[in-house]
Amino acid sequence: MSMNDVNGLVDLPLPAVSARVEALRIDRGQSMARPETLAEEIPVALVFNGISHAVMMASPLDLEDFALGFSLTEGIIARPGELLDLEVVPLPTGVQVEMRIPEQRFAALKEQRRNLTGRTGCGLCGQDSLQHVIRPLSPVSTGAQVLFTDVLTAMDQLGALQPLNLATGAAHAAGWWYDGRITVREDIGRHNALDKLIGAVAHQPVRDGVLVISSRASYEMVHKAAAAGFAVLAAISAPTALAVRLAEETGLTLAGFVRGERLTVYSHPDRILR
Amino acid sequence: MSMNDVNGLVDLPLPAVSARVEALRIDRGQSMARPETLAEEIPVALVFNGISHAVMMASPLDLEDFALGFSLTEGIIARPGELLDLEVVPLPTGVQVEMRIPEQRFAALKEQRRNLTGRTGCGLCGQDSLQHVIRPLSPVSTGAQVLFTDVLTAMDQLGALQPLNLATGAAHAAGWWYDGRITVREDIGRHNALDKLIGAVAHQPVRDGVLVISSRASYEMVHKAAAAGFAVLAAISAPTALAVRLAEETGLTLAGFVRGERLTVYSHPDRILR
Repeated sequence: MSMNDVNGLVDLPLPAVSARVEALRIDRGQSMARPETLAEEIPVALVFNGISHAVMMASPLDLEDFALGFSLTEGIIARPGELLDLEVVPLPTGVQVEMRIPEQRFAALKEQRRNLTGRTGCGLCGQDSLQHVIRPLSPVSTGAQVLFTDVLTAMDQLGALQPLNLATGAAHAAGWWYDGRITVREDIGRHNALDKLIGAVAHQPVRDGVLVISSRASYEMVHKAAAAGFAVLAAISAPTALAVRLAEETGLTLAGFVRGERLTVYSHPDRILR
Repeated sequence: MSMNDVNGLVDLPLPAVSARVEALRIDRGQSMARPETLAEEIPVALVFNGISHAVMMASPLDLEDFALGFSLTEGIIARPGELLDLEVVPLPTGVQVEMRIPEQRFAALKEQRRNLTGRTGCGLCGQDSLQHVIRPLSPVSTGAQVLFTDVLTAMDQLGALQPLNLATGAAHAAGWWYDGRITVREDIGRHNALDKLIGAVAHQPVRDGVLVISSRASYEMVHKAAAAGFAVLAAISAPTALAVRLAEETGLTLAGFVRGERLTVYSHPDRILR
C-alpha cells in the first residue's frame, strides 16, 4: 500500500515542515509584531511488523529515509533489502511509519526487547546495563581516501543545501559528498538528520566520499557513521573524547571544526590527502 | 550497597570531565600536530530502587543534580524530598546513579513500565503509542514578571559561566537567573544540561527569574521547563513550532534568539516588562 492509498483512506495529509507564527520582536526596549517561520516537530512512531518500537520527535521530512536509516543503524535489519514494506501513515497525533521486516529479524527484535524487559524487571546489575549501551561495530574498510579540499568543498555544499534551516534557523543537516555531488537530509535533530541521510544513500557504496554533519560529533554520530559504512566523517564543530576513541578503534577518519580553509583530524588522518 | 562500599571494592574515581588528545590541524594544506581538550561523554545509568530505568550519554559533571532533575521532569517523583537516597557509583563501563524513592512512586514506575511492555508486546495501535508521547502538564502559575533587560543580562551571564564549553567547544548550558545571580549547569547534551539545572535549583522557588538555555527550544525543553515550574524560558536560538504551541497552552513565556540587545517573544509576552 502506498502513502497515497493511506492518505486516501484516512484523509490526513503529512504535517507541514514549518509553520508561520506571530511573534513579538523586542529590540532595545522597542517592540514590534513580526511573523516568523518555525520548524515543525512531530512525534514519529516506528512500527515493525505491527509492533511499535520507538517514538521520536522529528521534522516531518523524508520519513521513509528516516525509517530505513534508523532500521539499519540500530541493527534491526542488516541491509536495505530487508525492509520489505514501508508506509508513512499520518495520524491526528503524529506520524506512524509502518514497516515489514523478515520474520527472523522480527524475532530477534522481539527477543532483544524481551531481554531488556526481563533484565529491567529483575533487579539488574548496573554493569550489565551499562555494557549493553556500547554496541559492537565492524571495522571500517581501509583504502578510501579523499583530498583535504574535498572535505572543505563537502562542508561548503552542505551549508548551501539546507532549506529548512535557512527558513527556520532550527535544523541540522547531514550530507554525503562523492565525486562533486552531495545528498543532504535535514531534521530538527542531528541524529535524525544522519539516520535520514543513511536511509537516502543506503543503496550506494558510501565507503568513498565524505560524510559531513552540521553539528558536533558525539559517540552516537560516530557509531551511526561507522555502522552505515562511511569511512570519513567531518563535523563542523567539536567531537567528544569518546567519539574520538570509537573512531580510532573502528577505523573511521574523524575530522572536526571544518570551517573555511581549515579542519582538525582526530583519527586515521592517512585517509585525508594533502 | 552504598557508593563507598562500591568504591572501596573496585576503587574507581569518577571519570574526568575532559580529555587531552593529539590532533592534526590542517590549514590550507599545511598540517601540524596539536593537542586539544575534548569533552568526555559517558554512559550514565539511572537506577531506582535497584532497577535500571534509563541509560544516557552525559558529561560526568553534577550527576546528583542530573538524577534529581531527571526524576522530577520525568514525573518519577513529585518533589525533591521524595528522593530518599542517591549514590553515584563509578563502574568500568560508565557511571551508575543509584536512587531510592518511596514504595508508592516505585510501584507507579513499575506499573508504567509494565504497561509500556504490555502494549508494546501485544501489537499496539500506533495512535495510543503516539498519544502516550505527549505528557500532560499543570499550567504555569501567573504573576512572575521580569524586565526585558533581565533576560538579556541572564543570557550574558550564562555565556560567561561555561567552563566546560570554553575548554572544549562541545557543551550546552542551562541557567536560572534570579535577582542578579545565576546558577549554571553544563552537559554535552542540552536536555541533560537542563535536567541538571532543574536538580540544582529544585529546592528554590523557580517561578521567579529567568531560565536561559544555550540552545534551541524544542518541545522537550519547554516540557521540562514547565514541568519544573519555571515561568520564563529564554533560548539563544530558535524555538520549534510545537514548542511554541506547548508554551502557549501551558502558560510559559517563551523567548528565542536572545542575542545582544534583542530577543523575540513567542508566547505570553506580558510577563516581560519593557
